[in-house]
Amino acid sequence: MLVVMRMGASGEEIEDVVRQIESRGLKANPIPGTQRTAIGITGNLGVVEPGLFESLTGVLEVIQVSHPYKLVSREFKSDDTVVRVGDLGIGGTDLVVIAGPCSVESLEQTQRIARAVKAGGAQMLRGGAYKPRTSPYSFQGLGLEGLQILRQVSDETGLPVVTEALDIDVLDQVCEYADMIQIGARNMQNYTLLRRVGRSGKPVLLKRGMNATVTELLLAAEYIMDEGNSEIVLCERGIRTFADHTRNTLDVSAIPAVQKISHLPIIADPSHAAGNREKVPPLSRAAVAVGADGLMIEVHDHPEEALSDGSQALHPQQFSELMGEMRRLAATVDRRIPDPVNH
Amino acid sequence: MLVVMRMGASGEEIEDVVRQIESRGLKANPIPGTQRTAIGITGNLGVVEPGLFESLTGVLEVIQVSHPYKLVSREFKSDDTVVRVGDLGIGGTDLVVIAGPCSVESLEQTQRIARAVKAGGAQMLRGGAYKPRTSPYSFQGLGLEGLQILRQVSDETGLPVVTEALDIDVLDQVCEYADMIQIGARNMQNYTLLRRVGRSGKPVLLKRGMNATVTELLLAAEYIMDEGNSEIVLCERGIRTFADHTRNTLDVSAIPAVQKISHLPIIADPSHAAGNREKVPPLSRAAVAVGADGLMIEVHDHPEEALSDGSQALHPQQFSELMGEMRRLAATVDRRIPDPVNH
Amino acid sequence: MLVVMRMGASGEEIEDVVRQIESRGLKANPIPGTQRTAIGITGNLGVVEPGLFESLTGVLEVIQVSHPYKLVSREFKSDDTVVRVGDLGIGGTDLVVIAGPCSVESLEQTQRIARAVKAGGAQMLRGGAYKPRTSPYSFQGLGLEGLQILRQVSDETGLPVVTEALDIDVLDQVCEYADMIQIGARNMQNYTLLRRVGRSGKPVLLKRGMNATVTELLLAAEYIMDEGNSEIVLCERGIRTFADHTRNTLDVSAIPAVQKISHLPIIADPSHAAGNREKVPPLSRAAVAVGADGLMIEVHDHPEEALSDGSQALHPQQFSELMGEMRRLAATVDRRIPDPVNH
Amino acid sequence: MLVVMRMGASGEEIEDVVRQIESRGLKANPIPGTQRTAIGITGNLGVVEPGLFESLTGVLEVIQVSHPYKLVSREFKSDDTVVRVGDLGIGGTDLVVIAGPCSVESLEQTQRIARAVKAGGAQMLRGGAYKPRTSPYSFQGLGLEGLQILRQVSDETGLPVVTEALDIDVLDQVCEYADMIQIGARNMQNYTLLRRVGRSGKPVLLKRGMNATVTELLLAAEYIMDEGNSEIVLCERGIRTFADHTRNTLDVSAIPAVQKISHLPIIADPSHAAGNREKVPPLSRAAVAVGADGLMIEVHDHPEEALSDGSQALHPQQFSELMGEMRRLAATVDRRIPDPVNH
Repeated sequence: MLVVMRMGASGEEIEDVVRQIESRGLKANPIPGTQRTAIGITGNLGVVEPGLFESLTGVLEVIQVSHPYKLVSREFKSDDTVVRVGDLGIGGTDLVVIAGPCSVESLEQTQRIARAVKAGGAQMLRGGAYKPRTSPYSFQGLGLEGLQILRQVSDETGLPVVTEALDIDVLDQVCEYADMIQIGARNMQNYTLLRRVGRSGKPVLLKRGMNATVTELLLAAEYIMDEGNSEIVLCERGIRTFADHTRNTLDVSAIPAVQKISHLPIIADPSHAAGNREKVPPLSRAAVAVGADGLMIEVHDHPEEALSDGSQALHPQQFSELMGEMRRLAATVDRRIPDPVNH
Repeated sequence: MLVVMRMGASGEEIEDVVRQIESRGLKANPIPGTQRTAIGITGNLGVVEPGLFESLTGVLEVIQVSHPYKLVSREFKSDDTVVRVGDLGIGGTDLVVIAGPCSVESLEQTQRIARAVKAGGAQMLRGGAYKPRTSPYSFQGLGLEGLQILRQVSDETGLPVVTEALDIDVLDQVCEYADMIQIGARNMQNYTLLRRVGRSGKPVLLKRGMNATVTELLLAAEYIMDEGNSEIVLCERGIRTFADHTRNTLDVSAIPAVQKISHLPIIADPSHAAGNREKVPPLSRAAVAVGADGLMIEVHDHPEEALSDGSQALHPQQFSELMGEMRRLAATVDRRIPDPVNH
Repeated sequence: MLVVMRMGASGEEIEDVVRQIESRGLKANPIPGTQRTAIGITGNLGVVEPGLFESLTGVLEVIQVSHPYKLVSREFKSDDTVVRVGDLGIGGTDLVVIAGPCSVESLEQTQRIARAVKAGGAQMLRGGAYKPRTSPYSFQGLGLEGLQILRQVSDETGLPVVTEALDIDVLDQVCEYADMIQIGARNMQNYTLLRRVGRSGKPVLLKRGMNATVTELLLAAEYIMDEGNSEIVLCERGIRTFADHTRNTLDVSAIPAVQKISHLPIIADPSHAAGNREKVPPLSRAAVAVGADGLMIEVHDHPEEALSDGSQALHPQQFSELMGEMRRLAATVDRRIPDPVNH
Repeated sequence: MLVVMRMGASGEEIEDVVRQIESRGLKANPIPGTQRTAIGITGNLGVVEPGLFESLTGVLEVIQVSHPYKLVSREFKSDDTVVRVGDLGIGGTDLVVIAGPCSVESLEQTQRIARAVKAGGAQMLRGGAYKPRTSPYSFQGLGLEGLQILRQVSDETGLPVVTEALDIDVLDQVCEYADMIQIGARNMQNYTLLRRVGRSGKPVLLKRGMNATVTELLLAAEYIMDEGNSEIVLCERGIRTFADHTRNTLDVSAIPAVQKISHLPIIADPSHAAGNREKVPPLSRAAVAVGADGLMIEVHDHPEEALSDGSQALHPQQFSELMGEMRRLAATVDRRIPDPVNH
């Protein structure tokens, strides 16, 4: 932390700040400059509240220097983490594609789509049983029945399944039926849920909140790791900006930004960012090219009948074509898309 | 909903869209224009998924016209709702000031600050027992002990108390000890929590999420009302923008925007928006002048020692001065600040 | 400037950064911390490019500490600047209200509206002769004829007039006819225009760009002051955010933020921020309450016929009522609205 | 345009809106719905001001339906436009890479870097002679001398050159020396400059403003086309958001969004979006993969000595490696990078 003094701050004011720093067991390092003095604070092992110093006389501002994350950082662990979900590894050379419907609507619908995405080349299945919906009058998901359908279809196809745990009430249930637990964008700062999924030991797919900085995303993962679970895959799914040509703005630069700071893998969800199927293929290409460790794609065989987000779902045929593109593209960034396990 | 056809869409394409609309029991109203045709959809009582029509041949785009909220809207109930918390009414002529520390740190600290804010003119007490913190290494609140302190201090001072219910696990506990339940900005779209607090019947203080539109804020309130609880006070606390001179950007225009659409009262939290105490008085003035039904202000008698957000807490003396300003200002907008109840 | 080294940076890497700093005539101040070393750079009188150090081995990041503005800052001049426009002073105790149509449409329209706003209590006239329009097919203003109309009406009513200089081509013309030159939001970083208006010596109304930080707004003013012109009034007119209930988000906190850092006056333009007349009165109240030195308000006597931005124009009667409110409100923040000069 | 009436608007209110629409020579198409009536307006060939109807009694809101651009749209011209700059074509199968220093600093520096980028595979040279700088104290470019250097180096290497015309004063000069005129992000809504460059007949590189929607970018191009110049290449260079891990957020989805609506080519500038060289290669890959028609990349052989933006400049060796990647990547999206012309 750096305390910057006002131009013309008196020697006494500077000494007072130094005393306040030292009275908290920290070390003050004054740096007299041409125009003003700054005081570096060292010796802090934890989080120092900036409010401690901001209101002292003569202080212009307080600048945070240390980053508050630890376990998630490459400074803590330099090698890439590879998260295991069944036989899959996310975060290594393999590029993992997760696909399926937005919502589980019935056993037959889930079976048809799961077979289609497997045939198209997906390695993992997605599908919502508990759905976070902006309006209370929208379809809220099949709940437990949806989880049971996902488990059955996962077993039938051999594709491991990821689904969202909407709250701590249903977390145990979701852990029982799913292979990987999704924490949705709206829950990225639901700290109770983060701690609880940390204790579950299950692999976690943690989506970036629509207004979260990269630092906040990593701190959300830190909550999970702090409970002893490092099986975390991050997911960029678009941020909220003024731009109105897509539902959210896919922030592809977050992917190399995370990879520089953290050892955790990160994938992209172009479907939710785009909000319409037309932009899913170009955004998928962008995400793979920028270095994402995988993709999560929504597919529906009757999108015009879908109970949620039909406009962003690819038709199975479009998904197959996209997978062909992805295979060629992966090779140019030294990745490969593994074949799905046969059952 | 309005389906806009591309320029040059053929008669058959238009007829096909009309057929698709009608096959869903809706009415299609084609509007042939100079350059292109649009088709209005009527007869829909619930939510229509735009995906139903977006991908039909010849369609340029689909525009939402209906607003998805019902119970919260003035079209549903034209009179202002006045929310009762103890003897207080929020949303009428009275302008309610809620004040207290960010976090409950000890009985003595809470007693001292509560007495100070009551002396300064606050009608209600705030304080965090369960704290949502970006970093797992920051102070997380005293939990149950904090709730017990708040109850005791509320009883001693006669100030009703509002505190945050961080998750559904602690909701019953918070309902037992507090007079009003706060749903924090990070939980504005925690739908399980919204439904549960809706069923509790307790007055609710619902904070706008940092990236929530006014529509989304009202839909979050709709979740609570849909469970039969209309005792909801909304709270503008700043949105996330590129501007970096305050922690968040206090969106004062959200206050008249909400008041036009909805009958629910709305207050402002200038402390969290500002992030530093210097800007709390001017933002408080702006919020009252724009028409807020109340203010929530953080106060600490030793902000440099505060375990959270010390930099934004007013000193009790600053709070008293602010209340003087607020009383004068309230009169110019036909409001009054009531005297706190004596106990 | 502060160079932060990676955790585990070697002694040699640190020494190399120190050498690079010193080779540029600057002083390096290493601050060894518990986890990493930071190096403060002092001795810099101008702007140091961060790129000089960011790419050196072992460097984690470079943090700017000094602020790049000088002449506009309170550290340079501590007293408030009062900008003189005719007999008016903007930035002192008086709160100045500028009003008039968005565009000058005809002599008669301008006369009618100018008389109405003077009768309502405005001290200054506004009106666009050259209009920046998003679409080339929208009304672009009357140009020179508009300037001549403004001059005539200003002389008739005794209200000084401000109008926008859209580019350097028309600047001399605008300087000839107007009492104050407006630099629009889209031109806030048109540096040639800023320098040129700086040399004109005329009072300037500089609007904040829709995506400008407070620092960038102040640096734009610095361009003008650097040419010897300190007759600058800043103007907050809303920033672009995701919020969609107003055209732009009026960032009222920018007003105290500017007033803390700079001696220049700052007013607000609630009409452009709101985009609709309904929200102009509450936003005007918010701006005055937060401490703005004045307001700029659009008024039209036939807004439904206006050639631009009719939806945000107040009717003369609404403007009069607003002025009544403003007079009462000004008193509560120790301001007064002066009477317009009689002619 | 669609006028949406309030729920419960009376028959008379609806008829009054219809009369107002018809009195302006437009056609009113009432659509009575279950809950409220909407009225479609047709017959408008130009821009209708929404303010005409927003304030009528019983009106809830007015929704724009028509898009205001014409010449730039695919509805106007369905084939891709290929912009010719010397022997190069931008917007066809070829993917064009423009590279060079941020600022022209000297003849020797420009020669060295131009040769290096040509050797690395660039087809076109960039370099700033007139620089828009946030601070008046930063290096402002060599001006005319810089233009002369660019011309000489362009002739020596055979690489056509693009450089920014900062204002209308220097436009003729820039047109004389450069092969393509850049309009910078800060000037995207400098309408005088847009019209003037439209009349110049020169190929234009139009950068998206940091806060511009895709619609506004296309309308800026419409200003240029409206003057008879359709030699326009658009450029995505990052938008301003809350995200702080890159200088701006490269909005890759703007590229397919533009390509759907418009026939004009669009390239990406990952250097300015990233703000640091580390993220330039991944963002370049993302831009090519998403479908950009080209890239503009900053290169410097001594970035630590650069007079502007050194931190984002690639070393020539890094640029060569990037070009290798780009060649492989281009093939996977059915593009090719042409060889630079020999001289």
